Amino acid sequence: MSDGDDGQPGIGRVEAFSDGVIAIIITIMVLELKAPDEPGLPQLWRLWPTFLAYVLSFAYVGIYWVNHHRLLSHARRVTNGLVWFNLILLFALSLVPFSTAYLGGQHFSRDATLVYLVSMLLPALAYVPLQQIVRTSGTQSEAAGRYHRRAVRKGIVASLIYLAGLPLTFVSPWPGIACAALVAFLWFLPKSPIDAWFEG
Amino acid sequence: MSDGDDGQPGIGRVEAFSDGVIAIIITIMVLELKAPDEPGLPQLWRLWPTFLAYVLSFAYVGIYWVNHHRLLSHARRVTNGLVWFNLILLFALSLVPFSTAYLGGQHFSRDATLVYLVSMLLPALAYVPLQQIVRTSGTQSEAAGRYHRRAVRKGIVASLIYLAGLPLTFVSPWPGIACAALVAFLWFLPKSPIDAWFEG
Amino acid sequence: MSDGDDGQPGIGRVEAFSDGVIAIIITIMVLELKAPDEPGLPQLWRLWPTFLAYVLSFAYVGIYWVNHHRLLSHARRVTNGLVWFNLILLFALSLVPFSTAYLGGQHFSRDATLVYLVSMLLPALAYVPLQQIVRTSGTQSEAAGRYHRRAVRKGIVASLIYLAGLPLTFVSPWPGIACAALVAFLWFLPKSPIDAWFEG
Amino acid sequence: MSDGDDGQPGIGRVEAFSDGVIAIIITIMVLELKAPDEPGLPQLWRLWPTFLAYVLSFAYVGIYWVNHHRLLSHARRVTNGLVWFNLILLFALSLVPFSTAYLGGQHFSRDATLVYLVSMLLPALAYVPLQQIVRTSGTQSEAAGRYHRRAVRKGIVASLIYLAGLPLTFVSPWPGIACAALVAFLWFLPKSPIDAWFEG
Repeated sequence: MSDGDDGQPGIGRVEAFSDGVIAIIITIMVLELKAPDEPGLPQLWRLWPTFLAYVLSFAYVGIYWVNHHRLLSHARRVTNGLVWFNLILLFALSLVPFSTAYLGGQHFSRDATLVYLVSMLLPALAYVPLQQIVRTSGTQSEAAGRYHRRAVRKGIVASLIYLAGLPLTFVSPWPGIACAALVAFLWFLPKSPIDAWFEG
Repeated sequence: MSDGDDGQPGIGRVEAFSDGVIAIIITIMVLELKAPDEPGLPQLWRLWPTFLAYVLSFAYVGIYWVNHHRLLSHARRVTNGLVWFNLILLFALSLVPFSTAYLGGQHFSRDATLVYLVSMLLPALAYVPLQQIVRTSGTQSEAAGRYHRRAVRKGIVASLIYLAGLPLTFVSPWPGIACAALVAFLWFLPKSPIDAWFEG
Repeated sequence: MSDGDDGQPGIGRVEAFSDGVIAIIITIMVLELKAPDEPGLPQLWRLWPTFLAYVLSFAYVGIYWVNHHRLLSHARRVTNGLVWFNLILLFALSLVPFSTAYLGGQHFSRDATLVYLVSMLLPALAYVPLQQIVRTSGTQSEAAGRYHRRAVRKGIVASLIYLAGLPLTFVSPWPGIACAALVAFLWFLPKSPIDAWFEG
Repeated sequence: MSDGDDGQPGIGRVEAFSDGVIAIIITIMVLELKAPDEPGLPQLWRLWPTFLAYVLSFAYVGIYWVNHHRLLSHARRVTNGLVWFNLILLFALSLVPFSTAYLGGQHFSRDATLVYLVSMLLPALAYVPLQQIVRTSGTQSEAAGRYHRRAVRKGIVASLIYLAGLPLTFVSPWPGIACAALVAFLWFLPKSPIDAWFEG
């Protein structure tokens, strides 16, 4: 497709479509949390691995929604690259419900934790070209520049933590899961320690 | 994330994403209403607990959508707190399809009713910090102030009714269910008796 | 809730939420069309009742989306009544995937056709108060008046056709199904014969 | 329905509803990718046909979203034809999750590949009248004319490639699948070779 850009309003529709896809991704994960057929609270308690995997992934996809929302607020026009790499990012995110179901269903086994950490890395990789596109074709203000530097830095730190989780999972799955939880926690803090570290 | 706010347009996207998630939550609950494989109206009639649980939860999530819609109409800017506590509220609401399926599948057993009432309380708790954020950073008009006072009051009354439902459920699940139905009914009335009570 | 209306922008969010719910309702029906596990085209062919029920219901929900879209374009402000009766309409529509699955799964049996026709009538009933609210509180132009007269007339004709389908179904389900198909066909025509009939 | 058009704002709601439906279509396909119950990477590896079918269909539906987005950006008003043929296009696209599940579940058998290629052709056919409507009632600028000529040309080339896949599938399913992949690849390229071929 080389039909050129459609101007600013197009970004609204890219956002709306992405919002729709991310909203569905984040919500269909709860379908894995199947209500037990038998009565009794012990039967309910057995769902904890599925529930914990759901909490982690909800936080993860929520973080991506926030990041995506901030990134696109700096975009100025809809280019082919933006549309396609945005679709690739959505595709990578759409695998999270699968790896979440696998992680919960396999009770945080080593294999499932490895698959899960890889599925955390894929959207991080897909985010890089999208960010590059917005950086070069989007708003060029100083605030945008600072935003991009911080976002790139955070993306690298998050990817390194996920990567560190892979060998740790061979020792035990829990340090691997802790890596995924750590990223969510770092993002949740009002003043990111990653920024504080770099900007002193 | 400490990248500051993105100004007013950002609220539109927070609303759009929340609308998407709430629309999915409210609609996937109908998937629990599985069409019977065998013919005959008695087989259809057996679905009544699932249907009743669906009606209650549809009203509940619908009330949250209306409240959320009103609350965000008083927000002026997208802060970190708003984004994250909004995600926490959506997470709490996303557990409603689970507790609804459990309530219907267990035919309104005591355990299932307790789980259901707790799942009604969680969004009410998650709503408190979100409302506080909009109250302090949002519109400061007198109408906004009156709105917030009324909303806080209603939130407290609703939470107290749900809490009262918990011990009542140990007597029989039906008073517990009646508490959930009562809140939906109070919200549905054009002129809330809760307001009339407090404002004379 | 008696917090008054939020002005014109609120209608956009009522539309967005309704669009989300209707989009999900119309799309989750395809999940009933389960791909056969065994190879061979005869196994595929056996899905025809489910497929036919899906086509009918997709047209039905699509018509409601179009009607809803037109109705709300005449609304001027978001009242409590509008919000709540809109939720009731969405609830009535959310039962269509259930009755569609039942109709297809029961191979257009008499009972399933009756349930289906009733589920077609419920949104028509829920539409009446919603339309009344927009009529009295919305745009008062002559075009709006003509729109409302036509819409009421069509709603009555559609309801009468569905009602006529109920006794016909006791003879054979096919006349009942034909009634549902007839309504979809009348709506699809560019110049409605219902308007031509009444307006000469 | 012959109530006339609702002016420009209506296009926004047609887009929003279409975005919602397409977002759900593209995302529910991942539900077919069911996490294996047994541990071990070989059990995971067995999912490759479902995964490959998902990748192909995600790209396919994504392409339609991009095309639809571009097409409607040239529309000026919401006509009856636009609304109804848009619904027909959405219906055709809603069958893709079914044919994708069939393709993956049948491990790319000949029958499943034929069904899949036919389900790729249906939206292409449904797109023709929609494009014609926007072409005659939409923006009449030279850029719009060039856009329409290119889009028609690409639609024809894509349909011919899918059609060519049908007889090839009788030899072996893989050339059929290659045809579906080829179309996705041609669309993904920044400067389409189809345009280069025709415009020298």
